[in-house]
Amino acid sequence: MTDVLLRGGRPWGFEGVADVLVRDGLIERVGPGVEAPGTRVIDLGGQLVLPGLVEAHCHLDKTLHGGPWVPHSAGDTLAGRIGNDLARRAELGVPSVERIGALLARMSAYGTTHVRTHTDIDPLVGLRGVEAVREAAASSPVDVRQVAFPQHGLLTNPGTAELLEEALKNGVEAVGGLDPAGVDRDPVRHLDLVFGLAERYGAHLDLHLHDGGTLGAWELELIIERTAALGLGGRVTVSHAYALGQVDQAHQRRLAEGLATAGVAIVTAAVYDFPVPPVKLLRAAGVTVACGHDGIRDLWGPYGSGDMLERAMHVAYRSTFRADGDIELALEAATYGGARALGLGGYGLAPGDRADLVALPASNPAEAVVAHPARTLVMKNGVVLHN
Amino acid sequence: MTDVLLRGGRPWGFEGVADVLVRDGLIERVGPGVEAPGTRVIDLGGQLVLPGLVEAHCHLDKTLHGGPWVPHSAGDTLAGRIGNDLARRAELGVPSVERIGALLARMSAYGTTHVRTHTDIDPLVGLRGVEAVREAAASSPVDVRQVAFPQHGLLTNPGTAELLEEALKNGVEAVGGLDPAGVDRDPVRHLDLVFGLAERYGAHLDLHLHDGGTLGAWELELIIERTAALGLGGRVTVSHAYALGQVDQAHQRRLAEGLATAGVAIVTAAVYDFPVPPVKLLRAAGVTVACGHDGIRDLWGPYGSGDMLERAMHVAYRSTFRADGDIELALEAATYGGARALGLGGYGLAPGDRADLVALPASNPAEAVVAHPARTLVMKNGVVLHN
Repeated sequence: MTDVLLRGGRPWGFEGVADVLVRDGLIERVGPGVEAPGTRVIDLGGQLVLPGLVEAHCHLDKTLHGGPWVPHSAGDTLAGRIGNDLARRAELGVPSVERIGALLARMSAYGTTHVRTHTDIDPLVGLRGVEAVREAAASSPVDVRQVAFPQHGLLTNPGTAELLEEALKNGVEAVGGLDPAGVDRDPVRHLDLVFGLAERYGAHLDLHLHDGGTLGAWELELIIERTAALGLGGRVTVSHAYALGQVDQAHQRRLAEGLATAGVAIVTAAVYDFPVPPVKLLRAAGVTVACGHDGIRDLWGPYGSGDMLERAMHVAYRSTFRADGDIELALEAATYGGARALGLGGYGLAPGDRADLVALPASNPAEAVVAHPARTLVMKNGVVLHN
Repeated sequence: MTDVLLRGGRPWGFEGVADVLVRDGLIERVGPGVEAPGTRVIDLGGQLVLPGLVEAHCHLDKTLHGGPWVPHSAGDTLAGRIGNDLARRAELGVPSVERIGALLARMSAYGTTHVRTHTDIDPLVGLRGVEAVREAAASSPVDVRQVAFPQHGLLTNPGTAELLEEALKNGVEAVGGLDPAGVDRDPVRHLDLVFGLAERYGAHLDLHLHDGGTLGAWELELIIERTAALGLGGRVTVSHAYALGQVDQAHQRRLAEGLATAGVAIVTAAVYDFPVPPVKLLRAAGVTVACGHDGIRDLWGPYGSGDMLERAMHVAYRSTFRADGDIELALEAATYGGARALGLGGYGLAPGDRADLVALPASNPAEAVVAHPARTLVMKNGVVLHN
């Protein structure tokens, strides 16, 4: 591993221009006028330096990225999309190590250094998705963590719970859930099951919650209660959480307080016209907010580029963030927020942190989100991947 | 003017691969195996060919594009944004011929060949915005049409009506309006005034309507009634029309029928989290739907790139369009819909149409919208601007 001195960038959170000395994969020094004779120097010419971007919610196993255009063929209901997915994934060779690898390469070029991906597990596909993601990740610089995800039902799809447990035994980092009420029809048993698995295997838990309004809000309460009771704070995430964007502000505040106290993180993808949780209110209450793409070019929808700065733009845009400080909250979700949700250690731009870095021509964090210009430098564990 | 044979592209709406012969600024032939000895040949290698993109609603005069990042400084209300705009535009040198020119150059590189822009007119700025846009447009290949826009009130801002009339006498192509109820406080007098100006000067009329719910819906009725009574069908446009996205579907259908019968077009920008009119329902009823950016990097907000394919993506995305045919409706808004709203003659890909063309590497219209890849060819009036 070669040491590198990044000369004259503007690291996010530091005042003005600073050099970053990277040694043995870690950030050794950050400040003006760093000297390190004999070290490779990369001149950043005043560019913004961010920690590696964190994709906190995607579905690598489903992707058709890099292949020919596949016209969307699913109906307009969740059941229709699940049925279409089951029917067509084999025909299209999904999951595909090649497609997943191509997407990871694209993500890495955009500066993403960490990914949490929800991998379908059901009695038909078994653990093939988990294995495909693992194989693709093994030859990628991106740190990939999987969620064993019961996309096609948990209680309603016999054999799935056993497979989730097998995945966890196999080292999968997190267990997932899916609309305990709306899809799986028995929220209490569903949640008890996945919380039980998370506790037993020391795993993270990341639940898809599309259920809206007061139903979704009540499920959030059940999740908060269980997280607190089991002491799983910092290891539980709710993805999408549309209900948070639908209830009134007093209700939002009560839930935000509960999420913050229990240590439950929220991930938003700001997709389509679906409600976006109130990012600013959640952050003000101390809730960890992360961000991800959800699907990227798959049977569920054709959108998504893999660029987390573009995704942060969607979050900021749908949140009607115009002021720099507000837009910066979306960047925080795509970096530090994601790192907290995933439980990453040594993440950031301080001495001692892992040298996972991105540089780009933007005058400040807000411009990085709004314009999301091409990355000029991507570094993972101190290795320059793209420059 | 050099004649050009565009070899082996896939023109939108034609089956398969076809050549396009451009002569004297017009499309002369479209079809397979066209021969034109001695003519310059550009090989498109199967790329998609679209007619020039139409930006149907922007604010060129306000833009800060191409200059340094300006942190957003306006408050969160419409009144706050208007006040901030008035206070800061002089300090920032707005309107700026240089900035407008830079933005037009960017738009052209993205394949935009026609722009309708709403230019602020008020007793303080007078017609300086109109003149700045004209000066920038004079050295741009883009066809720019202006709307004399009472951004700071019409009835509520004495002297503005006279300036709008002066602008029309001066050759400005359209007269504008702004929330006849919500901002200007007297919808009947406001509408009678701007409809009167449109009729008297043979001008187009393009009204900003942010007023929501039943108030905005009722104003749409007033606009439909006046358009029909004065026989101004095809020359009247309502921009934003958030109300259309807020009323129930039966109400949407009644309004759509009225808009179609009277010949009133709708322009959507799909900005922030604001309601998007029901594009599919409107098109099914025969309403002309166009698309534009609204502001691009200005004192009203920092977003916007100038790329109409990216803008069409926002329209499709917020409309939850996943199927190819649905996504194509957004592309139609950014091309043919815009052309109809602006009243452009000779627009399209048929023999005899003006040779305003764009080529890009996309397998079909849906992919062009979703991925909005860089344009490989832009042609205006038969002249290759970008290749």
